[in-house]
Amino acid sequence: MLTDMYQLTMCYAYWKAGRHELDSSFELFFRKPPFGGEITVMSGLDQVLSFLHNFKFTSSDLSYIKQLIPDAPPSFFTYLSSLTCSSLTVESIPQGTLVFPRIPLLTIKGPLGICQLLETTLLTLINYPCLVTTNAARFRIAAGEDKVLLEFGLRRAQGPDGGFSASKYCIVGGFDGTSNVIAGKILGDDVQVKGTHAHAFVQSYKELKEVTFEEGTIGHSIKEKTLKYREELNWGDTHEGELSAFISYADAFPSNFLALIDTYDTLGSGLKNFILVSLALDDINYKPTGIRLDSGDLAYFSSEVRKMFTKMAAQYSRDFFHKLMIVASNDINENVLQELKKQEHAITAFGIGTNLVTCQKQPALGCVYKLVEIEDQPKIKISQDIAKVLIPGRKKSYRLFGADNSPILDLLIRENESPPEVGQRFLCRHPFEEQKRVFVTPSRVEKLSSIVWDGKNGVVGGLPTISGSKERVKSQIKMIRGDHLRYHNPTPYKVSVSDALFKFLHQLWLDSAPVLELS
Amino acid sequence: MLTDMYQLTMCYAYWKAGRHELDSSFELFFRKPPFGGEITVMSGLDQVLSFLHNFKFTSSDLSYIKQLIPDAPPSFFTYLSSLTCSSLTVESIPQGTLVFPRIPLLTIKGPLGICQLLETTLLTLINYPCLVTTNAARFRIAAGEDKVLLEFGLRRAQGPDGGFSASKYCIVGGFDGTSNVIAGKILGDDVQVKGTHAHAFVQSYKELKEVTFEEGTIGHSIKEKTLKYREELNWGDTHEGELSAFISYADAFPSNFLALIDTYDTLGSGLKNFILVSLALDDINYKPTGIRLDSGDLAYFSSEVRKMFTKMAAQYSRDFFHKLMIVASNDINENVLQELKKQEHAITAFGIGTNLVTCQKQPALGCVYKLVEIEDQPKIKISQDIAKVLIPGRKKSYRLFGADNSPILDLLIRENESPPEVGQRFLCRHPFEEQKRVFVTPSRVEKLSSIVWDGKNGVVGGLPTISGSKERVKSQIKMIRGDHLRYHNPTPYKVSVSDALFKFLHQLWLDSAPVLELS
Repeated sequence: MLTDMYQLTMCYAYWKAGRHELDSSFELFFRKPPFGGEITVMSGLDQVLSFLHNFKFTSSDLSYIKQLIPDAPPSFFTYLSSLTCSSLTVESIPQGTLVFPRIPLLTIKGPLGICQLLETTLLTLINYPCLVTTNAARFRIAAGEDKVLLEFGLRRAQGPDGGFSASKYCIVGGFDGTSNVIAGKILGDDVQVKGTHAHAFVQSYKELKEVTFEEGTIGHSIKEKTLKYREELNWGDTHEGELSAFISYADAFPSNFLALIDTYDTLGSGLKNFILVSLALDDINYKPTGIRLDSGDLAYFSSEVRKMFTKMAAQYSRDFFHKLMIVASNDINENVLQELKKQEHAITAFGIGTNLVTCQKQPALGCVYKLVEIEDQPKIKISQDIAKVLIPGRKKSYRLFGADNSPILDLLIRENESPPEVGQRFLCRHPFEEQKRVFVTPSRVEKLSSIVWDGKNGVVGGLPTISGSKERVKSQIKMIRGDHLRYHNPTPYKVSVSDALFKFLHQLWLDSAPVLELS
Repeated sequence: MLTDMYQLTMCYAYWKAGRHELDSSFELFFRKPPFGGEITVMSGLDQVLSFLHNFKFTSSDLSYIKQLIPDAPPSFFTYLSSLTCSSLTVESIPQGTLVFPRIPLLTIKGPLGICQLLETTLLTLINYPCLVTTNAARFRIAAGEDKVLLEFGLRRAQGPDGGFSASKYCIVGGFDGTSNVIAGKILGDDVQVKGTHAHAFVQSYKELKEVTFEEGTIGHSIKEKTLKYREELNWGDTHEGELSAFISYADAFPSNFLALIDTYDTLGSGLKNFILVSLALDDINYKPTGIRLDSGDLAYFSSEVRKMFTKMAAQYSRDFFHKLMIVASNDINENVLQELKKQEHAITAFGIGTNLVTCQKQPALGCVYKLVEIEDQPKIKISQDIAKVLIPGRKKSYRLFGADNSPILDLLIRENESPPEVGQRFLCRHPFEEQKRVFVTPSRVEKLSSIVWDGKNGVVGGLPTISGSKERVKSQIKMIRGDHLRYHNPTPYKVSVSDALFKFLHQLWLDSAPVLELS
């Protein structure tokens, strides 16, 4: 029922004309990679497979559809009530694979009625996951392998479920953890849930007398030793409420003390208070975790913080200061990560929310779902916009690799053509520009899609896991040439068609397009 | 559980320090209206109230939290398991009201532990609804009152639930219908579900012999009469598969025939085929609905289509041609609507997807949730960025109206101050710039917030309905001065503070901000 009304009206029209059982093929693909880049990550397949498995109209769905299409006879609802995905075959590219324009991410084969009905839902289940996984992968590339990346976007997500999908697919794209508790609960060990405290926690304290502990408790030791260091370092002018908040938080999380230090004055108060409590914690054998910056000049503050840590490490001969995390989390996007790389900074982890989960730079991917063949007749859609012309007929897709094992290009061929072979020259053509041709002699050839669902067995090859998909993203990014990953003006990655497909497409195009008569 | 981890860690730290029952006040507000405009629509309150009503940790939630905070003692989980929202009082501005920066949309009062826990969820439930409702309202303003606006965004929404929220809140913002079936099913009569057919439907037909009907049926008459008109008008060169698809669709939906005419050649084939089937339908007393354009120059095509309809109305003396809808649906955004207004076009309805639901122009609103008072002590958060300084303490908000009944400004005063009165001069100040002051003598004064939830009764005043909220948006937009609604450079709407609040804020600010020592 998570679908557009026109899928139901079309389904009824097909059924009424007796065409709902015609054998058809649809392809789901996109035309342009997001965010001005060249790469896109295939994602969302896990939820597509669950959806196919559970697809069924309930009786309450059917009564509602009866209201929408009141003239349809009872036998149409009998047909709908019997519909499942057991008549379908679905091919897909594995989750976590880098994918490129016009290559089918999913190919759906089966009766026209059910294939058409699935359009909107499949698009919904693929579009946003691909987009946000790609965004996360780009953030990972921008930040570098050595940084910890945490997703903090739930509060700005587009609906509660948008927040859940974002958390899950950001992990797939290369993030280390999320602040989203429900994501951790549902997804289990694959997802680390992280979080410390907010400004409100610090603000809620005013004076040291608000934190009291019984003698002999951890809290008592922390407070006592903190005050001793405060006197020793002559840091009595820091914010007292903030210091109270840190002592209280350290008492609750002695082995995971990570403090937000910018509520009042980052260097003048927050940093000093953190150091006092850290020294106290270390005295009773707990290692503090680090600090978080949520405002101001992140490069400058992080460097100053690191300098102070180094100074303290020397002054007190305490090694833990060298290992403290510096988390930054104020309005970070891909561009900020790129800029920070060029500056001196000492940030070790980033907490990223809004710009990551809403995909600020481009909030939708634009996958489409197109009919390419029906009863063995290839279908084409003509458009005044050449980019929207459909490559007709059932196809197979391959990735051709060079001697260095990096991909040279992706290739579409007709279903019955022989695939390119290792060591043999293969003519690859631009689908629309006739002069653009290249001979490729591949060192390796990879078939991109395989069957993930069939009528008999349901899911084939198991549901993709988060950790498996995440590993695949990582290895795929390592494999591709760096210039395709560049932030500014990446080298275009070629998607070609075979000579046979080129000729077939252009003949069908000429046959279908009207010749205008001018007078 | 739809929350950030740090709410749980803070809650535990409050509980461990015995501070979880401290009486606290939080405010939820935003700092900047979206989309470069001045207006924002309050939305999402209905789901906030449902959430407060249902808030409760399940035993499986508690076991998962135990994994996350392994050192917490059993009594903490006893506390969590007993938590409900029965100790809270929540004030809110009514759903559908125009709202402005810094005015609290929600004020939450109650014990610190539970108030803090709600932060992320409340932000998630308010941020996106306000954003997408505002977007829909702006699209409505751009399109004009006389156009039909349909939301087609499900396939590009950020997650399935994002699609549902989008459909619901676009209706609140001023849309007439949606393509989203599940939205219609769940939301009932307040939401009209609309849809016809896609290009795939047209492409799935090739020849006229594919559509056959028994004599005496509607379909038989439609086909027979269509072919008669085809000969009469000498339009034998249109695409035969398209004509077959239209006949088939008209047979299924004779009283709701709306055809997508741009699959092959909009004016040369699609329009002609639509006219042929329409004439046939009219002959057997069904009135066709109209056409949809999904590509090309929408202004030009719609004008040409309207001209042809006018010509046909005259040629065949059929009035229905004047009443046909012209629906446009290709990548429409607010800017396109504004541009179309300046051109000659004949579009009567717009189907809008991606740019509406993903809020392309600004995909997140940026509401925040801040502690403003605890145990009667006002709280302030200092920031190097003046826009981020918090206005401390519990407050009340008012809207002051001029003699023409349009709002002059919004005003924040301290909780115990007397509100401004009708006919009396009241000094209103900019919260941060001391020289900006204005005396307002209001003709009407409206208190903006009222209690929507209390511990004893739960929801107070009922859940906001879709139709009620939609009406409110409409009347609020009528009430505000047009220059605040302008697309380019709208006049800023003032949000002021009372003189007492100004002085209080600035004294607290001076007291809290450190005086730097330079040497």
